Amino acid sequence: MKLPVSTEWLLHCAATLAQLDPGATASAAQLAQYYDIPAAYLAKQLQGLVKAGVLVATTGPRGGFRLARPAAEITLLRIVEAVDGTASPYECREIRQQGLGALSPEECRNTCVLAEKMAEAHDAWRRSLAGVSLADIIATLPRTAPARTRARLASATGATPSRRAPGPAAGDPPSR
Amino acid sequence: MKLPVSTEWLLHCAATLAQLDPGATASAAQLAQYYDIPAAYLAKQLQGLVKAGVLVATTGPRGGFRLARPAAEITLLRIVEAVDGTASPYECREIRQQGLGALSPEECRNTCVLAEKMAEAHDAWRRSLAGVSLADIIATLPRTAPARTRARLASATGATPSRRAPGPAAGDPPSR
Repeated sequence: MKLPVSTEWLLHCAATLAQLDPGATASAAQLAQYYDIPAAYLAKQLQGLVKAGVLVATTGPRGGFRLARPAAEITLLRIVEAVDGTASPYECREIRQQGLGALSPEECRNTCVLAEKMAEAHDAWRRSLAGVSLADIIATLPRTAPARTRARLASATGATPSRRAPGPAAGDPPSR
Repeated sequence: MKLPVSTEWLLHCAATLAQLDPGATASAAQLAQYYDIPAAYLAKQLQGLVKAGVLVATTGPRGGFRLARPAAEITLLRIVEAVDGTASPYECREIRQQGLGALSPEECRNTCVLAEKMAEAHDAWRRSLAGVSLADIIATLPRTAPARTRARLASATGATPSRRAPGPAAGDPPSR
């Protein structure tokens, strides 16, 4: 079982947006430059996060993406499920009801115990990711990280950020 | 993320083999008839469980598959990972080290906190499945289930079971 490669992109982009000043936005082009990932595909994926209520998109010259709610209220689960859906990786096709060993419908009123145990494992995975918010992630970063993130994002030529940061800090790589 | 469809097959086949008499075996053809699933593909998948040390395969006219160890020592995790591998569904390609926002190698000595949280969720999933053995599964079945399983498996024409059970019980569907 594999999550889409874009899962990493969107977790990182959401964590980046969590470091912006309140009300500030970043465009898909800026985020794509910030992480050197394909802009068009990223833009589509970011729209998925908008649909899932994780981000809001604003239009116009100062338009872009920002978090739809406080970082403390956005869990990693919400982001991952916005990318990949909520289905369990285990698919039960009820093979217990077919073939020579077929159980009767009466015997299958309850969920198959194997499907039940697989669902419990999926629940454990979900609980783990539901227990971590973007605010928890940001809290692990060095104190200087958000200012640097904002400055570097602002140096991206993809679009004008809605609140331009003062520019790259000394020692930062030049924009390209 | 999706587990292969054969995950259900192999969990069920292993649970079926856990109901045989000690030393008895069932062939891939018998198991395929028992669950009405494709025999050739099932046979290949069962060999995967042999490689993983979950089953042993014996050859000859009485040959077939049986558990490689007591049912209490075979966890669902072992079976699922024999089918799908042990990799985490989340792939970290270190995008934090690329683009305008690239962190320095020194800043990336530790695992990315997002990859770390995704790994913790995978660990929670693995722990959940590692906590359930085939013996636990069998313990949830009605007391009469193992005898019926053996009888129906023996009625499969796929091959001669190594210890033929007395035949289908009254009310069982005819073999085909």
